[in-house]
Amino acid sequence: MKKILIINGPNLNLLGTREPEVYGKLTLNEIETELKNLAKELKVEIECFQSNHEGEIVDKICNAQNIFDGIVINPAAYTHTSVAIRDALAAVRIPTIEVHISNVYSRDEFRHNSFIAPVSVGQISGLGIKGYLFALQYLSK
Amino acid sequence: MKKILIINGPNLNLLGTREPEVYGKLTLNEIETELKNLAKELKVEIECFQSNHEGEIVDKICNAQNIFDGIVINPAAYTHTSVAIRDALAAVRIPTIEVHISNVYSRDEFRHNSFIAPVSVGQISGLGIKGYLFALQYLSK
Amino acid sequence: MKKILIINGPNLNLLGTREPEVYGKLTLNEIETELKNLAKELKVEIECFQSNHEGEIVDKICNAQNIFDGIVINPAAYTHTSVAIRDALAAVRIPTIEVHISNVYSRDEFRHNSFIAPVSVGQISGLGIKGYLFALQYLSK
Amino acid sequence: MKKILIINGPNLNLLGTREPEVYGKLTLNEIETELKNLAKELKVEIECFQSNHEGEIVDKICNAQNIFDGIVINPAAYTHTSVAIRDALAAVRIPTIEVHISNVYSRDEFRHNSFIAPVSVGQISGLGIKGYLFALQYLSK
Amino acid sequence: MKKILIINGPNLNLLGTREPEVYGKLTLNEIETELKNLAKELKVEIECFQSNHEGEIVDKICNAQNIFDGIVINPAAYTHTSVAIRDALAAVRIPTIEVHISNVYSRDEFRHNSFIAPVSVGQISGLGIKGYLFALQYLSK
Amino acid sequence: MKKILIINGPNLNLLGTREPEVYGKLTLNEIETELKNLAKELKVEIECFQSNHEGEIVDKICNAQNIFDGIVINPAAYTHTSVAIRDALAAVRIPTIEVHISNVYSRDEFRHNSFIAPVSVGQISGLGIKGYLFALQYLSK
Amino acid sequence: MKKILIINGPNLNLLGTREPEVYGKLTLNEIETELKNLAKELKVEIECFQSNHEGEIVDKICNAQNIFDGIVINPAAYTHTSVAIRDALAAVRIPTIEVHISNVYSRDEFRHNSFIAPVSVGQISGLGIKGYLFALQYLSK
Amino acid sequence: MKKILIINGPNLNLLGTREPEVYGKLTLNEIETELKNLAKELKVEIECFQSNHEGEIVDKICNAQNIFDGIVINPAAYTHTSVAIRDALAAVRIPTIEVHISNVYSRDEFRHNSFIAPVSVGQISGLGIKGYLFALQYLSK
Amino acid sequence: MKKILIINGPNLNLLGTREPEVYGKLTLNEIETELKNLAKELKVEIECFQSNHEGEIVDKICNAQNIFDGIVINPAAYTHTSVAIRDALAAVRIPTIEVHISNVYSRDEFRHNSFIAPVSVGQISGLGIKGYLFALQYLSK
Amino acid sequence: MKKILIINGPNLNLLGTREPEVYGKLTLNEIETELKNLAKELKVEIECFQSNHEGEIVDKICNAQNIFDGIVINPAAYTHTSVAIRDALAAVRIPTIEVHISNVYSRDEFRHNSFIAPVSVGQISGLGIKGYLFALQYLSK
Amino acid sequence: MKKILIINGPNLNLLGTREPEVYGKLTLNEIETELKNLAKELKVEIECFQSNHEGEIVDKICNAQNIFDGIVINPAAYTHTSVAIRDALAAVRIPTIEVHISNVYSRDEFRHNSFIAPVSVGQISGLGIKGYLFALQYLSK
Amino acid sequence: MKKILIINGPNLNLLGTREPEVYGKLTLNEIETELKNLAKELKVEIECFQSNHEGEIVDKICNAQNIFDGIVINPAAYTHTSVAIRDALAAVRIPTIEVHISNVYSRDEFRHNSFIAPVSVGQISGLGIKGYLFALQYLSK
Repeated sequence: MKKILIINGPNLNLLGTREPEVYGKLTLNEIETELKNLAKELKVEIECFQSNHEGEIVDKICNAQNIFDGIVINPAAYTHTSVAIRDALAAVRIPTIEVHISNVYSRDEFRHNSFIAPVSVGQISGLGIKGYLFALQYLSK
Repeated sequence: MKKILIINGPNLNLLGTREPEVYGKLTLNEIETELKNLAKELKVEIECFQSNHEGEIVDKICNAQNIFDGIVINPAAYTHTSVAIRDALAAVRIPTIEVHISNVYSRDEFRHNSFIAPVSVGQISGLGIKGYLFALQYLSK
Repeated sequence: MKKILIINGPNLNLLGTREPEVYGKLTLNEIETELKNLAKELKVEIECFQSNHEGEIVDKICNAQNIFDGIVINPAAYTHTSVAIRDALAAVRIPTIEVHISNVYSRDEFRHNSFIAPVSVGQISGLGIKGYLFALQYLSK
Repeated sequence: MKKILIINGPNLNLLGTREPEVYGKLTLNEIETELKNLAKELKVEIECFQSNHEGEIVDKICNAQNIFDGIVINPAAYTHTSVAIRDALAAVRIPTIEVHISNVYSRDEFRHNSFIAPVSVGQISGLGIKGYLFALQYLSK
Repeated sequence: MKKILIINGPNLNLLGTREPEVYGKLTLNEIETELKNLAKELKVEIECFQSNHEGEIVDKICNAQNIFDGIVINPAAYTHTSVAIRDALAAVRIPTIEVHISNVYSRDEFRHNSFIAPVSVGQISGLGIKGYLFALQYLSK
Repeated sequence: MKKILIINGPNLNLLGTREPEVYGKLTLNEIETELKNLAKELKVEIECFQSNHEGEIVDKICNAQNIFDGIVINPAAYTHTSVAIRDALAAVRIPTIEVHISNVYSRDEFRHNSFIAPVSVGQISGLGIKGYLFALQYLSK
Repeated sequence: MKKILIINGPNLNLLGTREPEVYGKLTLNEIETELKNLAKELKVEIECFQSNHEGEIVDKICNAQNIFDGIVINPAAYTHTSVAIRDALAAVRIPTIEVHISNVYSRDEFRHNSFIAPVSVGQISGLGIKGYLFALQYLSK
Repeated sequence: MKKILIINGPNLNLLGTREPEVYGKLTLNEIETELKNLAKELKVEIECFQSNHEGEIVDKICNAQNIFDGIVINPAAYTHTSVAIRDALAAVRIPTIEVHISNVYSRDEFRHNSFIAPVSVGQISGLGIKGYLFALQYLSK
Repeated sequence: MKKILIINGPNLNLLGTREPEVYGKLTLNEIETELKNLAKELKVEIECFQSNHEGEIVDKICNAQNIFDGIVINPAAYTHTSVAIRDALAAVRIPTIEVHISNVYSRDEFRHNSFIAPVSVGQISGLGIKGYLFALQYLSK
Repeated sequence: MKKILIINGPNLNLLGTREPEVYGKLTLNEIETELKNLAKELKVEIECFQSNHEGEIVDKICNAQNIFDGIVINPAAYTHTSVAIRDALAAVRIPTIEVHISNVYSRDEFRHNSFIAPVSVGQISGLGIKGYLFALQYLSK
Repeated sequence: MKKILIINGPNLNLLGTREPEVYGKLTLNEIETELKNLAKELKVEIECFQSNHEGEIVDKICNAQNIFDGIVINPAAYTHTSVAIRDALAAVRIPTIEVHISNVYSRDEFRHNSFIAPVSVGQISGLGIKGYLFALQYLSK
Repeated sequence: MKKILIINGPNLNLLGTREPEVYGKLTLNEIETELKNLAKELKVEIECFQSNHEGEIVDKICNAQNIFDGIVINPAAYTHTSVAIRDALAAVRIPTIEVHISNVYSRDEFRHNSFIAPVSVGQISGLGIKGYLFALQYLSK
């Protein structure tokens, strides 16, 4: 049975209350519940992890080696600033999909750059919670 | 019944023969067949269109107004150079998802810029044919 | 009797329905009618042409050589991306005025650059349909 | 009866003698006479003002509030360097048209940038004295 | 008794009427009155000066040498364009605080640069009239 | 009674010993004592927090929602690199003032950029410990 | 017998009349005749194609796969703007030489960039019609 | 008898007191006296002018037309910001030499750019008062 | 007896398994053992520290003040993004050598920039584990 | 009889052994022999010169004035860094063709810039030894 | 008796024949004769040196240490590319004046940058041979 | 027995007298003696070479092929400007270490770029003469 790690980056703990017109009204809890339901259906195991700490996300990825078969990551703010997360993903060589809830290309210019994208399999952005579900579906094949 | 327009840009007519290590072995025909099968399942109507001509794609989008409920577009090379397609999409105001078969962020730097992204709902890149299917699924809701 | 060519670029066929708060409520047809009325008054002959195809606009300009005495062009999106139209205008050496309905300088940064401006006599932007009429008036002298 | 303010910036007092191959042979006086003739015809009142001093132009614009209904400004060199004039125009919120006698886009690169353009209704450049006349005509509507 | 010079740059004469949603409803007069009240309380002498002319501000600063013990300056538009005011402040070596009523960092990109900041003791921006009062309080120590 | 959160970022624990010619001789402890004295006077409650960890600062801000009425933050090095802290502040929508002890504009060029400034009410820099006190005073109104 | 495709891009139909001091006095027809004469001599078959339409050039290249053994292309204006032609050439993997009649490096700066060059075997520029003949000679080996 | 105009820009009135380690200890008065002595010797007439106002310098240059045979200008801060002075010099076409007392190339980067240099005959910088004397000598030939 | 602190940044815990063709086959443990052996020989005391957390590295450096006589740091990904570590090193003023196992100049362009280099004594890169040993040897003098 | 100078720049003495997959297997000697054979056939005289010294190449070009009728130059590394060779070519005004064995546009970005190109008649790159032969043929006309 | 070294860089051996409309008609020989005459008058000793080789100029400067009291250098093309000459001048610490015959600021943009200027006392450009004479005069004081 | 070539670039002949506060007091001779002592100890043969001429350094490297097993190079000023030395090193494929006596990252910005670094095994900078010794030690393994 495949194991997929779901990582949510900084401030995503505020989902539901944070700028709901941008990020939607679902809480992170509700998103994780939907992901678990889909995981059951797809017969894969998932683990959900959220942290505001770049270092904890790096730790998590380092420890994922030889345990997880795929990673769905919404690096949030760290997308644009973290070489450390990029290097961690490149090091463990686990197929990864980068997800953004909002369309990063219609926001601040500095959000157009992603350190994560070049080391991931692909990206989904702007499709809300659906982005996570599609990513999980893709990796569970 | 919803109507979705599927647009494929320049050189995608060569799919299956064009750098298959980058773009996969499926022909455009086979991709369109898979999309039609999914459309049936989702109970939406789709029309597939491919052109190497920026102007024809602009024409197609202009004419889509009041006819289509969603657009899935893989603008290929025009992603990076066509303000005309961007303006067409902004003008007709039909929800659009931008799809790329390969991960544009691990290729030439000029491919990182998209004129289309800021006027689309979202983007999916790097997930191969799955990108089209997820986009269709999203827009058919 | 002088002959003036009026060229409208991509998406201007949508005038009247396209973002009317930016481009006004007049259709292209209505603008062309006003231009024809003014032409009569000024005793010049005009021909109106619209295309979404960069290549067709280039063809039109190439064929204008030795036939037209002036060109009024709203290159729309091609303003910012078409070296081919610039080269065509430079090649036929017909006095040309670049017109924009909206004020391009209060919109996206990439719209501030014009490949056409350096090879035209002058530009009028932001004055709505009046821009076309002033340009026609100028060239008919 | 509408009141329109005509502002000419630095060195335009030299018109007629300054690089006549670029700026034409008319003196500023002659241009202002033509503008006054047109104003009569259009039944608007105009006031003509020229200064080489950025501060005087700012003063003039500040004092125009609640007095003038439109401004035609050729900011000349200050187009490219004056945030103060831009802020004055934005502050008084009087519809303004920016005019340039020569085609600024076929000259030095630093002349392509305009601090004034984004806060004006529109621009006319390269049409010689006609630019002033068209601008006056537009604002007198 | 310490003497502090308060300098307000271009368009600040319009305070109260200029974009009140950005700059507040107080007139320059009212701000100067508040400053004079505070000055009394702090037992310092102040002189208030406003000009739209870069040159007059330079003159004022040059003449402040050996007379004033501190300068509070809101250079407004000249913040971003005036090397002359910067050089004047550097020349007279009077401790200076740069004040901005609005938050310049949430406005146009060109407003992020300040020629004045590197030669001042410090900056206060976005705190409305309070910025002036804090600056006066700081310099009166 | 208003509650204000005082956040000090990385290396500010070294205040008093760290480059005293740049940052002054007061320790962080002494600054916090002064702030507490002022808070009493202003009849507001304050909480002081220092961390070298970007993630802990993000956590602190996330948890401040619905508890604090204002934030005084000296993000130190994170000013220039942390999108995560910016997003946290934007998410909780608590009025925030950015404070810097030294004048960042007379130091390295990369210190001129602030990710925090556009989402804060205002900034005070270069006024030493006074910056914190003014900020507290402003927010306690 | 080898087959070589000769492609001429936008405005090259005007050769002979277009800025003859830059492009020479030969018409496209005359150039194609010289190429055909050389082809006979070299015992290769050639096909000549000119279009002002980016899309038609892309179509032509797509269709060249498995038919032509070499391509001589003067992409003219599209050299600097067409990712679509670049992608077409990269897709069909036919050895290609890029030719320019004039020396692009002594003209506008934007003409120094070529999207085509990195996917071609080599370039010849500034040698007039000789450039085509040398290219044909090279590919016919 | 030749007439030469000596123009000194902003803050040069402070010479002798302004950063004497950079600009030397001579006052502007003393420099002008030396220039007058040299002028006598060279049998040319000179007029000395200093202003902190960009507009006054522009006025002065405009009025110099047909009166002066040469201009020695130290534009000081306006070197780097004034297109208006550049345009004035270009308009009157009087041979001009740009002088700087200090070596501008060993100071702030923004001081390396000169709007005046391209329209002057030449520049002398870093040679202190000698720069003025050499310039006068050159123009008096 | 001198005390030297050895700091390894993010993902270096994966040494030996992470892209061994770039970073070599030695584990961090084995490297630290070699360093301890060398330390004995050199008669210096060392402490080895690894963390994926920027904040922990900053804490470690802050606490090193007055305890350690030198620091050998491989900041890994934080080299390119951490102003906080730079500031910590600048604050504690302990002689520091920056070490990179691989040659950062033959990798991604963003890896060419180091925030750490300007505040360190020197750098060694590309010499594998030897870099650490040379650095230790240098600092133990 | 025409005289043509063939100049080869730095490291081309290593041809045949230097990265033969990029530069081919022919030695410089063999290339020069082929050039001499062609020269005979074309009835022109050639002189071949190779140097690793920028200064020697400049000397050679300076001395070519009034002796040679054309120059074929492969400036190799100096293409991208030598203003001195550019100035020498511009000074002697001998028609020059720049040749590169490999396609410089598919290599490092800094190799795309040529100081030589704007002062040469034209360039040939990527065609191996054929580039020299074509250049000689062109200049011998 | 003071000793001054006069250095002329690449291609200045061609003076008199090289683009005389830019560089004048005097040969280098004639310029050196004028310099020698002036030197006599000023009672200083001069040595004149010209080379097209960067390395020879560096050698010359290195050997000038403790022998010469001043250097007049026209680095020509090496102005814009030679860090080696800059470092040599900085190393020997002999007062140096940089001279250019033509006005470098009205030529190619890359000629505006000088590696030499920041380590020289001053620069004179655009004053033809007079530049050398003034420089000699200045250094002989 | 291994043979190692030690190359020192421009102005390093001045070591000991050149800015000793930056480069130390040892002469090049003394450094070379230390290197020879170490070489004996390591049982490798070394040859020391210094030149101020880029071309001589290129010659030396070209001739090193098949003779030397390693190169220690301090390219000094040529680090930042010489593509020719880079190409020579890339051509001969001898393992090379780049050494700088001072820390180039705490000096002028243009010194941060190295053309040599990407083709070398590694770099050591800022460690004074120790850099050479470590490099020799590394290459002699």
